[in-house]
Amino acid sequence: MSLYLNLAELLGERIEQGLYRPGDRLPSVRALSTEHGVSLSTVQQAYRHLEDQGLATPRPKSGYFVPAARQMPALPQVARMAQRPVEVSQWDQVLELISLPPSRAGVIQLGRGRPDIDSPTLKPLLRSLSRISRRQDVSSLTYGCIYGHQGMREQIARLMLDSGCALSYEDIVITTGCHEALSAAIRAICQPGDIVAVDSPSFHGVMQALKGFGMQALELPTDPLTGISLEALELALEQWPIKAIQLTPTCNNPQGYIMPEANKRALLALAQRYDVAIIEDDVYGELAYSYPRPRTIKSYDEDGRVLLCSSFSKTLAPGLRIGWIAPGRYLDRVLHMKYMGTGSTAQAPQLAITEYLEAGHYEPHLRRMRAQYQRGRDLMIDWVSRYFPAGTRVSRPQGSFMLWLELEAGFDSQRLNRELQAHAIQIAPGSIFSAAGKYRNCLRLNYASQPSAEIEAAVRQVGLCAAQLSDADKS
Amino acid sequence: MSLYLNLAELLGERIEQGLYRPGDRLPSVRALSTEHGVSLSTVQQAYRHLEDQGLATPRPKSGYFVPAARQMPALPQVARMAQRPVEVSQWDQVLELISLPPSRAGVIQLGRGRPDIDSPTLKPLLRSLSRISRRQDVSSLTYGCIYGHQGMREQIARLMLDSGCALSYEDIVITTGCHEALSAAIRAICQPGDIVAVDSPSFHGVMQALKGFGMQALELPTDPLTGISLEALELALEQWPIKAIQLTPTCNNPQGYIMPEANKRALLALAQRYDVAIIEDDVYGELAYSYPRPRTIKSYDEDGRVLLCSSFSKTLAPGLRIGWIAPGRYLDRVLHMKYMGTGSTAQAPQLAITEYLEAGHYEPHLRRMRAQYQRGRDLMIDWVSRYFPAGTRVSRPQGSFMLWLELEAGFDSQRLNRELQAHAIQIAPGSIFSAAGKYRNCLRLNYASQPSAEIEAAVRQVGLCAAQLSDADKS
Repeated sequence: MSLYLNLAELLGERIEQGLYRPGDRLPSVRALSTEHGVSLSTVQQAYRHLEDQGLATPRPKSGYFVPAARQMPALPQVARMAQRPVEVSQWDQVLELISLPPSRAGVIQLGRGRPDIDSPTLKPLLRSLSRISRRQDVSSLTYGCIYGHQGMREQIARLMLDSGCALSYEDIVITTGCHEALSAAIRAICQPGDIVAVDSPSFHGVMQALKGFGMQALELPTDPLTGISLEALELALEQWPIKAIQLTPTCNNPQGYIMPEANKRALLALAQRYDVAIIEDDVYGELAYSYPRPRTIKSYDEDGRVLLCSSFSKTLAPGLRIGWIAPGRYLDRVLHMKYMGTGSTAQAPQLAITEYLEAGHYEPHLRRMRAQYQRGRDLMIDWVSRYFPAGTRVSRPQGSFMLWLELEAGFDSQRLNRELQAHAIQIAPGSIFSAAGKYRNCLRLNYASQPSAEIEAAVRQVGLCAAQLSDADKS
Repeated sequence: MSLYLNLAELLGERIEQGLYRPGDRLPSVRALSTEHGVSLSTVQQAYRHLEDQGLATPRPKSGYFVPAARQMPALPQVARMAQRPVEVSQWDQVLELISLPPSRAGVIQLGRGRPDIDSPTLKPLLRSLSRISRRQDVSSLTYGCIYGHQGMREQIARLMLDSGCALSYEDIVITTGCHEALSAAIRAICQPGDIVAVDSPSFHGVMQALKGFGMQALELPTDPLTGISLEALELALEQWPIKAIQLTPTCNNPQGYIMPEANKRALLALAQRYDVAIIEDDVYGELAYSYPRPRTIKSYDEDGRVLLCSSFSKTLAPGLRIGWIAPGRYLDRVLHMKYMGTGSTAQAPQLAITEYLEAGHYEPHLRRMRAQYQRGRDLMIDWVSRYFPAGTRVSRPQGSFMLWLELEAGFDSQRLNRELQAHAIQIAPGSIFSAAGKYRNCLRLNYASQPSAEIEAAVRQVGLCAAQLSDADKS
């Protein structure tokens, strides 16, 4: 790990442990430089990283402080190890979440994994889409090459350099969203009955894919700051014939953590030792608040066992349905699964995104969204602290735009969701993020939209309903 | 069957049997009216139907004649009954066909199932697409409802009235092309190892889906004029634990026949008796040359066992990737499979197609394309008669835009395809239309494009290469 990250981690731990308390002045840059024998710029880099994580605030001419107003709620707890792999259920609850039309009048959807699509930095993309759609030519209207548009694959290979991956366009297959990438990856590696180890809580789309293909999920204890437990994974690999590990290590959905680089490398080493594949969901990776973006597990992969899945659904717009997969040694199988599922991928959005990337619009857009989502996180945590029952635990997202909440044991977030229907508000109940329906006392909130009084009122309403349900249970 | 179809069939048989020979004058409308005790307009309808099928030509003030110049080549032969269900192979050949980029400079692609996308009747669709793509609103950029856009589903329900189906929009799920509809249908009904009865030759996309999901295909003898053999199907149903029948009964791919209505009903009755599902691919149904379009098997379905799969890929443009499925009693399972595969379907093309349908642009477009493809068929059969080795057998497409050719036994169409690379021409080798790699001596040609000297030269080149390969084999 680089020097500044080491230092930032050390300071971060001290803050989390309460050595420095809210409002305290943090050591000066000069003092830390002397104490740790590193350059001034390294210390400054460390502080900027802590700032990105919301753990330090600069004050002009006074140095860095522990954010004063922030009384951070406690973190969610780590779930116990699953007793055995299970078949996935909860389809009815997922269906409830995804069957609402996108613009159902008046419903505030805090439940779905939607990015903000109102940014002016998306305008050049819309102009390209419009121009390409008007054109009556073969390249946008007919079947594309099954691998996807070459120009787009070249641009993705370039993007992925930032995550430490040196790929050629030939290593990449374009898919109908990350959903198809994950689905093709799972089918390329596993047969019905096979066991897949997953982080927990975990993306409901993958849970449902495992269910649909007849595979079993083994949910591993997952730390809300560092991700999947390597000890638990090793135990599981010894005990069960696991075929693949599926996880979202960077800006995890739903918890938002970034697995430390050392853990990513250690996880890969385990996968090598036990010869299992890794299906790495990186769909939020470019929305990490810190810059440069964190490395992928794929970037350490030497024998092609990592299948990296991603898309532009979270960074640009979900409606485009453009994702990709870098499937390593499983390229042939994945390509076959992709062909079986949908044939080739729609051409026009590929051409438009390629233009957008080539013209250099993507980086400024990402910068803007990262900053917006980071502010959104701080505000959402603040709202939850104020409006939810005392003792509500929350995650510490390091990227993306979703917050994971844990209420007291016995709380029923599905019942909460039903109560909220009367208020035209939707949340994502925790149980859909577990194969076995755990996390009934948890829920996920989306903070992608520009903050507004309306959203704050909705969050307050969710908190109010949650408190009422809690009180009703006690009386 | 209606009176005029009865009469047309009778006359058609007499022509096919040689009772009336090329150039002969056919009986007058008045004479037939008297002979068969039907109205003059019924006879005229019968003649128009024969005209649609290329079996009669009107001459002003002289009545109807058997087309003079047309010395129709013989029909392809019916393959024998498969000995047993087999696992599907040929993925490498399919991959060769589909991995070519859409506009690879100079390559004349006679192999793929592409419609003509140059028609001016598509312009309103492109304008809608362009306008919608420019709009930065939730409905086109974010995740749609998992079932698809309601307005589009309502329009499809209306369209399907023409095929005899009385469906509500709630019976329809929008998919990423017909490919996803078929894939979801197969997975909704079958488990790995299950047997699916198929027409033969059959669409390679379905063959590959069966392969990928680990199912077995039982290829049934299929008549080039009337489709799947009902006797063979009944035998197979008695002998094997068949889970589903998958077929393209209307404007079959690759043979172009339309299964007679009586056969469609009889097939459904068999499926009911043996309690198996029917996966009906209707993707070419609206491109039948005769009007009104033929009924679907689904239109006779009373207990929801038919899963009707279709799309706008052949009628509008493949690059839109918009299809649909009316899955009957399997709706819940299909929806789950669709969610697992790709999540929701892209919104913008759904909104644009809905506008196009609502504004009444679709019917005139279909009329134009049907007429163009019918002319294309006559020309392509003529070219094949002239440029291919004597004895080449050809299908009699009654819709769509593809011709199936059978050369002498032992001919190798894959080798032909390789030879044609030097001439920048691609055909679809017959073996990809069979689970077991049958039909090596067959090939499929596309006649969707407006006829041109370039295409005629390409067909001549294919014929020439075919003749050379045949001669080389003999010497």
